[in-house]
Amino acid sequence: MIILSRPQIEALVDLDSALAAIGAAYIAASDGRATMPPVGYLAFPDRDGDCHIKYGHIAGDPTFVVKVAAGFYGNPAIGLPTSNGVMMAFSAQTGVLEAILLDEGFLTDLRTGLGGAIATRALCRPDARRVAIVGAGIQARWQVRCLRQAMPETQFSFSIWARSEDRARETASVLHDEGVDVSVSTDLERLCRDAEIIITTTPSREPLIRDTWIQPGTHITAIGADAPGKQELDTALVVRANHRICDSLEQALDHGEFSAASRTGNISAENCVELGAVLGGKAAGRVHPGDITIADLTGIAVQDIAIATSVLDACKRSLAG
Amino acid sequence: MIILSRPQIEALVDLDSALAAIGAAYIAASDGRATMPPVGYLAFPDRDGDCHIKYGHIAGDPTFVVKVAAGFYGNPAIGLPTSNGVMMAFSAQTGVLEAILLDEGFLTDLRTGLGGAIATRALCRPDARRVAIVGAGIQARWQVRCLRQAMPETQFSFSIWARSEDRARETASVLHDEGVDVSVSTDLERLCRDAEIIITTTPSREPLIRDTWIQPGTHITAIGADAPGKQELDTALVVRANHRICDSLEQALDHGEFSAASRTGNISAENCVELGAVLGGKAAGRVHPGDITIADLTGIAVQDIAIATSVLDACKRSLAG
Repeated sequence: MIILSRPQIEALVDLDSALAAIGAAYIAASDGRATMPPVGYLAFPDRDGDCHIKYGHIAGDPTFVVKVAAGFYGNPAIGLPTSNGVMMAFSAQTGVLEAILLDEGFLTDLRTGLGGAIATRALCRPDARRVAIVGAGIQARWQVRCLRQAMPETQFSFSIWARSEDRARETASVLHDEGVDVSVSTDLERLCRDAEIIITTTPSREPLIRDTWIQPGTHITAIGADAPGKQELDTALVVRANHRICDSLEQALDHGEFSAASRTGNISAENCVELGAVLGGKAAGRVHPGDITIADLTGIAVQDIAIATSVLDACKRSLAG
Repeated sequence: MIILSRPQIEALVDLDSALAAIGAAYIAASDGRATMPPVGYLAFPDRDGDCHIKYGHIAGDPTFVVKVAAGFYGNPAIGLPTSNGVMMAFSAQTGVLEAILLDEGFLTDLRTGLGGAIATRALCRPDARRVAIVGAGIQARWQVRCLRQAMPETQFSFSIWARSEDRARETASVLHDEGVDVSVSTDLERLCRDAEIIITTTPSREPLIRDTWIQPGTHITAIGADAPGKQELDTALVVRANHRICDSLEQALDHGEFSAASRTGNISAENCVELGAVLGGKAAGRVHPGDITIADLTGIAVQDIAIATSVLDACKRSLAG
């Protein structure tokens, strides 16, 4: 059996392979080739913590994957990271546990970043350059890194806004050290009015982005809303968008960014398409340059399957080599 | 972080501590102190395999446990064991993964055996000696071992019956090598008519044990039925029993041994009690020597929590010592 630590996983990850694997996994999910039971959940309200268990299998894959991801939001106050987690790969032929990836949440962060990049690449205007990053948590960083990886030929201009200007500056500084210039904005409205791509990564429970701020032609990738009560975009903006795309119709309408507009009866599953259908050429993404497109990503188990499989393939190649 | 292999776990397990921990866990579950979400499930029909994910938390416990258990029933034909699995313990304060128990299904087999022994001890007549074991799989062995551990002063007389007489002989031989005499029966009716305790451990999908075979005063522990469609006892026998006890009312009535009688409307939750309530003194088990008692055990996550915690406590003691 293979057991990999986080540093080993970080050394093995190949972002281009992972991008390809996650894109294929979205298509498999939308084609009905993936089994993804409801996400398991445990809450620890006394500690502001929770645990999600995502698991599934893509038909024909030699392995199936179970992921346990914990988020304890008081951890930073005691010097620990918020996220923890582990992914396990089992043989789909024998049930034997083949690998444990002690990724401590790293692969979840990464696959979320890569999912966002895939959505943004598929849906933004080809000439879009000005990218607004909203929020300054770990996903803000990964969305920038992964978008650059997914579209290496595009010279993006990144700006970031966060409720805490200090945290926005800190994120800009970290990315600067990685060779990416990110300007810090203190005016969210102006940032959004000027953006061609907006990527929202906050845990907000009330809309941050107003409908009236958004220009025709803008693409928005909304990462933050992944549980009941979370919302980053005006409901009117979700209703106004020309195209609504999501990783999972069921999750987006139940507890993602599209859920508020669904609850008020303004949109339904008929007005949304899955990202896998767009990637597979079975549904339209952006049609006109002036379209507003919104991608609502809540995170699905096939992303975990794809990233875990991608790391394990790299590990096996390195052992064979 | 602690990672233990199966041989390490086998060396650390203390059956008496585990018995006490599992008994306390049943009481916690029936008292409403345990969170046990619905069991996660993946099926691999092409390979006659499935995977169950059980997880939960007992209020106040410093850890929570996630167990992944796979059963691939064609494995023995290719020289592999049917069961595989892993248990993980996480801090309920921080979400940090604290231990991985690579038990390969051993702890599931053991906690199932211990659960059966706890039920049998709590419900059989104090003077019961003649024990009929029905089925010759791994649970047949564990039920014998654990019952002897739980009731060390009782001189039981064990007999075993299985559809395959060869497998019954093989199990008797294995137990003989461990110092336990088990006679092999070829007549299930006679075995049951003569028994004071019957422990059923088969994956049968139709009743094996007839109502008319069972004498007043008999206790039956039914282990096999843990999924829809499985049934070991005549529905009439379940209805006739004076006391019906189960580890989980919800599971027993939905897919356990009590489900057939529940579906026909002959029994309901009002006619059953949970084992934890009996152990905690909140419900009656056996009342009269002539009562027929049936314990239906489908397996609950608190057993996994208890056995994992028990092994980890032993590990920490051995590291400290």
